[in-house]
Amino acid sequence: MSVYPSTLQRLISDLSKLPGVGHKTAARLALYLFRAPREYTESLAASILEVKKNIGFCTTCFNLTDQDSCKICKDPNRDQSVLCVVEEVGDLLALEEAGVFPGRYHVLQGVLAPLDGIGPENLRIKELLERLQQGMIKEVVLAINPSTEGEATATYIAGLLKKQGVSVSQIAQGIPMGGDLKYTDAVTLRRAMEGRRETR
Amino acid sequence: MSVYPSTLQRLISDLSKLPGVGHKTAARLALYLFRAPREYTESLAASILEVKKNIGFCTTCFNLTDQDSCKICKDPNRDQSVLCVVEEVGDLLALEEAGVFPGRYHVLQGVLAPLDGIGPENLRIKELLERLQQGMIKEVVLAINPSTEGEATATYIAGLLKKQGVSVSQIAQGIPMGGDLKYTDAVTLRRAMEGRRETR
Repeated sequence: MSVYPSTLQRLISDLSKLPGVGHKTAARLALYLFRAPREYTESLAASILEVKKNIGFCTTCFNLTDQDSCKICKDPNRDQSVLCVVEEVGDLLALEEAGVFPGRYHVLQGVLAPLDGIGPENLRIKELLERLQQGMIKEVVLAINPSTEGEATATYIAGLLKKQGVSVSQIAQGIPMGGDLKYTDAVTLRRAMEGRRETR
Repeated sequence: MSVYPSTLQRLISDLSKLPGVGHKTAARLALYLFRAPREYTESLAASILEVKKNIGFCTTCFNLTDQDSCKICKDPNRDQSVLCVVEEVGDLLALEEAGVFPGRYHVLQGVLAPLDGIGPENLRIKELLERLQQGMIKEVVLAINPSTEGEATATYIAGLLKKQGVSVSQIAQGIPMGGDLKYTDAVTLRRAMEGRRETR
């Protein structure tokens, strides 16, 4: 018999399915929600339902949007000659929050993972090539996460893009800010060393 | 202008009000909820609303319950002669999950905090004394969190209880399992030393 009343037990069980939320955190959150003002819990519940209802993918870049085209694709001030290719929406959002890219994006919605049955046809690669054929894009920056699968995906896409005659680059790998060489893996150290730049 | 569509922004903002959830975690959870199956998000939203609607406090011990009396107060197998006094429901649940107490509980719903205007009349102390007057309870274990306010509350309640002629004890303080003396504060070290027991 659970120590919680069944209504609370169900909320804890639902919350503990969230990523990074274990049973203890779920119990803490559930008690918080029980005590929270009703306006807050009603707003939270409504937000959860509305996100499922109102949000979809941008038909151009596959970013999230509540309309046909996302805010970035509709913004006339974004540089239309450079395109940044990312794995998923979370990566795009991280770059946007850092404010480090002036162009537009293309979200692949995954990486190649042959062992999981994910091939080029499961990613938004066809749509990427179609965007390039419109002729506006001069440079593509690949900002795919550095993992075995990510790197294979970047190599595969770079091959296709070069055939289209656009300039292709990849974001740098190295020691992150606040990182410590003695806790950094060998691959990162090698990439950081290979990518060294003359001190100005 | 936010990088998120407004529906998503609202969910992120609601989620980031949860304890221990910052903006980054909220964004991650929101993206997870966007991708999660509809049955899950509907169940979560309903659970949140139902907890506010169905859960209240046990009229005897002030534990959470979806009925008049909580599961523990209604359980005839619990020892009715010992009572464990805790600060809040989360503390009761921790003790129950550990399965370390065979009796019943009394939840104070806070501790004395004169600076915040919380006096004895704001806690469930009157109700505690009323329970004792029924004569079933022979021993009270104070399991109030060790903090300045918690200890003042324990001392205050112990004084009242002793007048009623019941045996009063307090849970032990010391080094927690997995703790390390060199990272332990001086007060805890002193309590651990004072509370030492002969090795058997």
